[in-house]
Amino acid sequence: MVEPATAIVAAARRASARMADRDTPFIFDDWYVAAFADEVGRTLFARTLLGKKILFYRTEDGTAVAMSDRCAHRSYPLSEGTLEGDTVVCGYHGFRYDAHGDCIEVPAMAKCPRSIGVKRYALVETGNLIWIWMGDAETADLAKLPETAFQTSAEWVCSKGYLHLAGNYVSLHENLLDLTHLSYIHARSFGTPEYARAPFRTEIGDGHFLVHREVIPTLLPPVWADPMGLAGVTTAARIATSEFMSPGFHRVTVSFYDSAVPEAKRQVGTIRTAHLPTPETHSSTHYFIVHGRDFALGDPDATGVMHDRLFQAFEEDVEALGKLEHMLAETAPEDMYEISVATDGPSVAMRRYLFQRARSAEVWAP
Amino acid sequence: MVEPATAIVAAARRASARMADRDTPFIFDDWYVAAFADEVGRTLFARTLLGKKILFYRTEDGTAVAMSDRCAHRSYPLSEGTLEGDTVVCGYHGFRYDAHGDCIEVPAMAKCPRSIGVKRYALVETGNLIWIWMGDAETADLAKLPETAFQTSAEWVCSKGYLHLAGNYVSLHENLLDLTHLSYIHARSFGTPEYARAPFRTEIGDGHFLVHREVIPTLLPPVWADPMGLAGVTTAARIATSEFMSPGFHRVTVSFYDSAVPEAKRQVGTIRTAHLPTPETHSSTHYFIVHGRDFALGDPDATGVMHDRLFQAFEEDVEALGKLEHMLAETAPEDMYEISVATDGPSVAMRRYLFQRARSAEVWAP
Amino acid sequence: MVEPATAIVAAARRASARMADRDTPFIFDDWYVAAFADEVGRTLFARTLLGKKILFYRTEDGTAVAMSDRCAHRSYPLSEGTLEGDTVVCGYHGFRYDAHGDCIEVPAMAKCPRSIGVKRYALVETGNLIWIWMGDAETADLAKLPETAFQTSAEWVCSKGYLHLAGNYVSLHENLLDLTHLSYIHARSFGTPEYARAPFRTEIGDGHFLVHREVIPTLLPPVWADPMGLAGVTTAARIATSEFMSPGFHRVTVSFYDSAVPEAKRQVGTIRTAHLPTPETHSSTHYFIVHGRDFALGDPDATGVMHDRLFQAFEEDVEALGKLEHMLAETAPEDMYEISVATDGPSVAMRRYLFQRARSAEVWAP
Repeated sequence: MVEPATAIVAAARRASARMADRDTPFIFDDWYVAAFADEVGRTLFARTLLGKKILFYRTEDGTAVAMSDRCAHRSYPLSEGTLEGDTVVCGYHGFRYDAHGDCIEVPAMAKCPRSIGVKRYALVETGNLIWIWMGDAETADLAKLPETAFQTSAEWVCSKGYLHLAGNYVSLHENLLDLTHLSYIHARSFGTPEYARAPFRTEIGDGHFLVHREVIPTLLPPVWADPMGLAGVTTAARIATSEFMSPGFHRVTVSFYDSAVPEAKRQVGTIRTAHLPTPETHSSTHYFIVHGRDFALGDPDATGVMHDRLFQAFEEDVEALGKLEHMLAETAPEDMYEISVATDGPSVAMRRYLFQRARSAEVWAP
Repeated sequence: MVEPATAIVAAARRASARMADRDTPFIFDDWYVAAFADEVGRTLFARTLLGKKILFYRTEDGTAVAMSDRCAHRSYPLSEGTLEGDTVVCGYHGFRYDAHGDCIEVPAMAKCPRSIGVKRYALVETGNLIWIWMGDAETADLAKLPETAFQTSAEWVCSKGYLHLAGNYVSLHENLLDLTHLSYIHARSFGTPEYARAPFRTEIGDGHFLVHREVIPTLLPPVWADPMGLAGVTTAARIATSEFMSPGFHRVTVSFYDSAVPEAKRQVGTIRTAHLPTPETHSSTHYFIVHGRDFALGDPDATGVMHDRLFQAFEEDVEALGKLEHMLAETAPEDMYEISVATDGPSVAMRRYLFQRARSAEVWAP
Repeated sequence: MVEPATAIVAAARRASARMADRDTPFIFDDWYVAAFADEVGRTLFARTLLGKKILFYRTEDGTAVAMSDRCAHRSYPLSEGTLEGDTVVCGYHGFRYDAHGDCIEVPAMAKCPRSIGVKRYALVETGNLIWIWMGDAETADLAKLPETAFQTSAEWVCSKGYLHLAGNYVSLHENLLDLTHLSYIHARSFGTPEYARAPFRTEIGDGHFLVHREVIPTLLPPVWADPMGLAGVTTAARIATSEFMSPGFHRVTVSFYDSAVPEAKRQVGTIRTAHLPTPETHSSTHYFIVHGRDFALGDPDATGVMHDRLFQAFEEDVEALGKLEHMLAETAPEDMYEISVATDGPSVAMRRYLFQRARSAEVWAP
């Protein structure tokens, strides 16, 4: 027996010390999906994001607002209070806040004290998504808002879903960036044995990490073969691009066609999935997903069938990442190391990027 | 939007640093209700008070005794053993303790080793209440025993109850000392909208903190209007006094009458409630309550109806304080601050008093 | 009342500071039972031992193997993967390990990187037991393997069982070494009142601690009186020897006969129990038990009856030690002390021995 070589383990530990993991502080100065648009309305709605308890509602003109869910007076959850017009009244002592998080009334006081309030968060709504800037609202940078225009484009048919992941968001990003797992975790859904062995190329940029894989020829799984009319076709092509776009957004694009058909005559179908992980705590993640296709647009049945099959696969990831989180939580530091191989290049670079951003933020407390 | 002013938040944090909260050490040198008298009898009874596991029983002559529940030999819970006469026999190796907590027999030894024993606690029984001095028994100070004579007086009809609170006892004291919450938490039981806005006066003494509030005219809630014969009377008066008496005792006294009736002809009814919080852990509290009235003494139905309605309201507090505890537990220190307003004067003073007492005790470990 | 003498408590604390308890590091350089032989087969089996998650299976030739359950790549539990021939394939990215824990295939790589692997553990199988050496496999010392030959001897009829103990293994060893608890914890099973008071002798060696107790005359409990034909015999003898053999092995031997029968004509029956505690975590223990008798060998009914009655008693220990663990976990350090008496000599020595071994190991982190 050859024990794992001491030098390799030591090198792996040195490398891991500069990679984000479940213990790395969150990155606040960025956009994350807070909720689907239809989750926020005229009732008070509370959700924990990046460890912060946040209150959401819409004002009477339909604008979504977000503020700290903790009353500045005695910490009672504002979400347990009542929405009156555009204001929230705390359910404990009646402190009233406007849609900016400013306290505008204290019932026991003839005059409301000035400059009391709770932290407000900047929100932007695009299509079905409500994005939140988790840093100071004044620093919210619209130029950094992820581009997900496909979700409202007439050229795409989309569906959406939410999964609660009992694992950290770094593991989910890593999962998405290394699709060799399709042959294993998804062996019974959309993985195929040759997928993990297919050639690939990677791009490692500044905050953008990409893996591109071409599986030709292959047999498509039913989820795509059926609506593409490629069932049983052994000469199919499957061209997948997986891209880390930001801490809250990972984009997967996959094209399909029959490689036996000359390029000029090919019918190419493409799917695009926006994977939108928002950390809840260091060991749990809100996993929002928007999925679209640019083919079989007039086939409503295809939408339901594809949605069900894909979300079944995403649930396989959630289940697996939950088991992984459990292992990470129970492994003693002295037993912990992660050995990376060549295919891990993009995910290692991505984890270094997250680590650097977390370290450069003020919240870092080593 | 005006962000909560940095200077105000900083000042609030400095003030909070000298106020007791859920992290403040307990105050051991005082009396707390350990149990209702009828909870302790000739079977072994265990309860955790101020983080200490304590065993209770009565000797054959009916005297209630309390001692540490942990056998001095190998830490087995004595409450899992047997009561034999006035002695307790440990269920593990048979160590026998007398009612003073002294070990008087070790079965495997011909002669019992001397000076082995467990900590005994001083108890005093008054009416339905068994009070415990949580410090050293020799220092138990009867002069500090709270006065609750009304519970056994012929001029009062009383009922009692127990609620388990999933929150710290400081929050409960603060809840009781700021009755503006009646209009919100108890909006559906005995709160009325004008209550929070009524004029009040406060008294801040050395270990005694009082809020007095007069709501005239008002419409009494049914719990009091019905037995007082004041249902529908819009000129009713509601005079409430809320007093922090000790870490284990808060007294609320409320009088009712029809303010339209000349003073000489008024029928004044008074209720008195002894709120008796005993910390279990830093995040849970035994909440004992004795409630009495000095009117409708011959109406047994009124007792049951009032008890049920009042305890429904006390359960509203318990539910709200449980939600508050959850928020406090989940708020990161860097996000925590509490802004006090003028009506918080007595509760801020009370929390400073608890903080000072905790700090001056030997158990303080900063 | 005499408070527990301060000097005695202080001395007890000084003594305890050198005795193993629930906080003492584990002793890795020794043999522990990992599983019964029939628990490990051709399916992947995971168990946590001494805080380490370990994977077990048998190769095609029937050899039991054990290795770390954490994939060296990204920490996914190998037990969630698949067993293919003698190899394990990780269920996340398909890393394949041989029975030595060496990684022999990475699907996404044309050539497997060298010297990647997971920690392998040395196993030895004796009779129904699979023993594991928890330290480095190269240091596994067969000379230290506990001797339990009786389990496969024709002179003994054996049965076996497993109990999960919600308590630390030190408390279980102490329980086994001080059988005065039989009169209390087992008062309704195989304890008798006079047992705790019977004369005893002890032996304290280097890693071997023994208590020998002779109860003559006595009335045997039915579990032994019935198969020995000594029911109702008031002159029975019960000679018990309890021996700590190693951190993972405690042996109890008890002989029975009618003391009224002359020595030459006596029928002596003996039972032997191998108590095999393997720490799972610091507060839980895998409790393996093998029980044998050398009498009534041809009576299959006796085996079942004795097994059921004995395991009922062992469950009494498990229940009591669970309550003890709870008390230990909830007792504040400043309230904790354990006073030992003369009968505790062997268990105090045993706990000092475990403490010394833990302290001398490299894993000790004070």
